[in-house]
Amino acid sequence: MTNASASGLVPDDQPIQIGAIVYPNMDQMDLTGPFAALSRLPNTTFQLLWKNTQPVRDFHGFQITPDASFADAKPMEVLLVPGGPGQNELMEDEEVLGFIRAQSERVKILFTVCTGSLLLGATGLLKGRRATSYWRTTHLLKYFGAEYVNERVVADGKFVNAAGLTAGIDGAIRVAAMLRGEEAGKRIELDLQYAPEPPFNCGSPDKAPAELLAISKQAGADLTARRLVVAKRVATKLGVRVDD
Amino acid sequence: MTNASASGLVPDDQPIQIGAIVYPNMDQMDLTGPFAALSRLPNTTFQLLWKNTQPVRDFHGFQITPDASFADAKPMEVLLVPGGPGQNELMEDEEVLGFIRAQSERVKILFTVCTGSLLLGATGLLKGRRATSYWRTTHLLKYFGAEYVNERVVADGKFVNAAGLTAGIDGAIRVAAMLRGEEAGKRIELDLQYAPEPPFNCGSPDKAPAELLAISKQAGADLTARRLVVAKRVATKLGVRVDD
Repeated sequence: MTNASASGLVPDDQPIQIGAIVYPNMDQMDLTGPFAALSRLPNTTFQLLWKNTQPVRDFHGFQITPDASFADAKPMEVLLVPGGPGQNELMEDEEVLGFIRAQSERVKILFTVCTGSLLLGATGLLKGRRATSYWRTTHLLKYFGAEYVNERVVADGKFVNAAGLTAGIDGAIRVAAMLRGEEAGKRIELDLQYAPEPPFNCGSPDKAPAELLAISKQAGADLTARRLVVAKRVATKLGVRVDD
Repeated sequence: MTNASASGLVPDDQPIQIGAIVYPNMDQMDLTGPFAALSRLPNTTFQLLWKNTQPVRDFHGFQITPDASFADAKPMEVLLVPGGPGQNELMEDEEVLGFIRAQSERVKILFTVCTGSLLLGATGLLKGRRATSYWRTTHLLKYFGAEYVNERVVADGKFVNAAGLTAGIDGAIRVAAMLRGEEAGKRIELDLQYAPEPPFNCGSPDKAPAELLAISKQAGADLTARRLVVAKRVATKLGVRVDD
């Protein structure tokens, strides 16, 4: 991860508009952690976007109400694409993929969290790029022509991917610093009292005991298998060849 | 912080109902971090509760829709009280204070995040107890007869307080372990990929450079002053004497 510099990509007197895609069966944490960080940036506004403005429920039932439809989205400097099980069917949804592609040309940062990187991958925009994803799905990045990098936050050009769920907080503080400079990132980190103390020190595959990791992989096996099926179809569409 | 034991407070075959108070000008992070952790507990359901079911907006505009009114709340094993600037006026709102007091008799854990502990304090239930709060407001705990403890998560009896915002994730994983045993907490920590890497290592007053801390305190000075005014009125009502 690179370059939180003294001055950011956007001068303080220029407003920043952030758009975030929300959708059924997303994981709210991939949105709300980054929202907490990025909504604290000075001179910045946030819109939650979906095909329409009907409320959606996240994977665990949390109700999220979009602020605007894709058609009514304000021109934005940042697009956030969160993850969650619902990402799987969006990977073949041309309306969503088209919206991401169109925004990618304008935004300064396209920021994904968790399996949001698979959705970005399905647009073809990660071809030849370094990327990361939720620990359960990093092996799928190659189907989009991306190179998996084992870091919590990976930036390549205007694309920033955070790993799973809580990694969105780390990623968002870095994005804040990229946008408005390092001091802005530091203020947000203190505002959020982000001095974490994970109780069990087992929050990644390399930290977790083997038995816990095996149980957890087994619990997610069905969903991971369904994601692989879609990833393979997308790879064919994108012309990405994977030997496996 | 104590006792994440092998077996939890609630046997796996008994359902757990969690209620969370939501309100205008709360901070969504105090709710959504814990929601991500606790909604992953097996055999557990979550309700967002307010005086009515009209959507509220958090301090930065995030729209939250209650699942039920206080009157329609299901009997619960856990009550979550988040914080945020909107806590200040609720500290003298008898409907809210009465709801918290009534639930406190039934629940196994009453869990506050950030300035949610001030709201709990205003009920009188923290008198003589160890507690914590957002770093900006720890000096206010004495007005409720509580003893401030400089830890990220503090448990005293059935009361669990997490410090500011992101500390709700640490607190919720601990609460998960208290409810369903240590293995359940570990699985959630891995599910959330909670192996945090704060970019600037300045997320608490003792870690932040002096200049950053001074700027941050100045930015929050007005709100802190308003909170002090209310805390003093509440102290009088509760019969707590503070020499200052």
